[in-house]
Amino acid sequence: MHEAIGFLGLGNLGRPIVTNLMAAGHQLTIYNRDAGKVAPFVERGAVCANQPLDVVSPGGVVLSLLWDDASVETIVRSEGFLARLGTGGVHVSMTTLSPDCSRRLMALHAEHGSAMVEAPIFGRPEAAVDKKLWIVTAGAEAAKQRVRPVLRAAGAQGVFDFGEQAGAALAVKLIGNMLIISAMASLKEGLALSQKMGVPPQSVVDMLTTTLFPSPIYQSYGRLIAQGVSGAVDNRIPAKDVGLFKSAAEALGVSATVSGTLLSLYQ
Amino acid sequence: MHEAIGFLGLGNLGRPIVTNLMAAGHQLTIYNRDAGKVAPFVERGAVCANQPLDVVSPGGVVLSLLWDDASVETIVRSEGFLARLGTGGVHVSMTTLSPDCSRRLMALHAEHGSAMVEAPIFGRPEAAVDKKLWIVTAGAEAAKQRVRPVLRAAGAQGVFDFGEQAGAALAVKLIGNMLIISAMASLKEGLALSQKMGVPPQSVVDMLTTTLFPSPIYQSYGRLIAQGVSGAVDNRIPAKDVGLFKSAAEALGVSATVSGTLLSLYQ
Repeated sequence: MHEAIGFLGLGNLGRPIVTNLMAAGHQLTIYNRDAGKVAPFVERGAVCANQPLDVVSPGGVVLSLLWDDASVETIVRSEGFLARLGTGGVHVSMTTLSPDCSRRLMALHAEHGSAMVEAPIFGRPEAAVDKKLWIVTAGAEAAKQRVRPVLRAAGAQGVFDFGEQAGAALAVKLIGNMLIISAMASLKEGLALSQKMGVPPQSVVDMLTTTLFPSPIYQSYGRLIAQGVSGAVDNRIPAKDVGLFKSAAEALGVSATVSGTLLSLYQ
Repeated sequence: MHEAIGFLGLGNLGRPIVTNLMAAGHQLTIYNRDAGKVAPFVERGAVCANQPLDVVSPGGVVLSLLWDDASVETIVRSEGFLARLGTGGVHVSMTTLSPDCSRRLMALHAEHGSAMVEAPIFGRPEAAVDKKLWIVTAGAEAAKQRVRPVLRAAGAQGVFDFGEQAGAALAVKLIGNMLIISAMASLKEGLALSQKMGVPPQSVVDMLTTTLFPSPIYQSYGRLIAQGVSGAVDNRIPAKDVGLFKSAAEALGVSATVSGTLLSLYQ
């Protein structure tokens, strides 16, 4: 039997994920600030919730994929949310939160007998459509076991677990995004030099991605930069995620030289 | 018939390359400032030259793999070097030179009827032993055709050509090294955070290099950093090569924000 799922947030990544979950046979109740985005899914059998609380069922599963700490924390702390989720309920938090926020929210869930599972996502919306997402998890073991099939159905080609400790999966997500953004910024600077020197950037990308960097990140962003496509990435995402990395690093006394430079490029 | 080869410079990369060339059947005449390093090769049939000029034969092939602009330029401009190399001679310059220096030297060779081929190398000494080097080339077509089998014999698993324009292969080499050093510095900063947060760095490397970054650079440096191996890379190489990238970028009005930060980390 497929879990009924409450879903919060229909952004660029949320929409294909909901499509995948419904295609896999899950019954969905969806809340989005702009209810107009829910309508196409209602046509296919989903229920549109009027408020976040209405996606929650006692002991059930809720997935959230929102913008930032504040948007998730506001909903979790809203009247009735944790009380209704109750004993055995699982909240799968897919938003890229700060590890500190996740720690606070995970503890709050535990106090109410439910569990929050960190499950941030690597992958662009096209990858969600193709079920090629990578998801990293952390949280209580039993809760993770319950929702692993849901993560697969959501579009994960692989789920990597980082144990029970709060913040662990988010640390991996922030590190991964910092590395992606570093690769993008370095490619941009490097290919700008090749362009100026009269060496076709795509020939440099072809050489590098068949030798040293046979990585989808270098291939896809390298091609976009070589083609002169600007705005391929919404600057708000690098700025937010590198900002979270830098804050976490500084709070722990870790050098933030590279992330600080990257943040300055995307702010 | 195998080309007789003159070879200048027996550094960490030069030694395995000379071993490969001799194993492939080339007769070598070798000059190195410290002649003691030439001795083991003399035992196997190489000739030890007393001065750089003695590796040059009229119309022949000379390979140089030295430290920097100054070391190559001093030899090329030394009394008799270009005169003896003469018409049809080919100097394969494998050192990571500045594109400007390479342009000057390529023009000087042309004035004397010979050709300089840029052939900088991607790969550590272990990769040379395994014949897994990547070599990028630029220069006169006929000269490149003549020496391509030599580059293969030297240990290249692949040779990527970037046309006849001076500086083109060096631009690719500098861009590639900047990207490698950027990946190293970012991994170091990222894994320092995972360590502090109690997430085993090797587990992060394993996840990232089987998903977003299935690249030998991320795998090998990630493992070294996760193991806490310091000094895996001689800082002089990043400092020199990122310095060359930054100078080339600044001279052409290209942003050097990322390379500037990297340079500050390795100086």
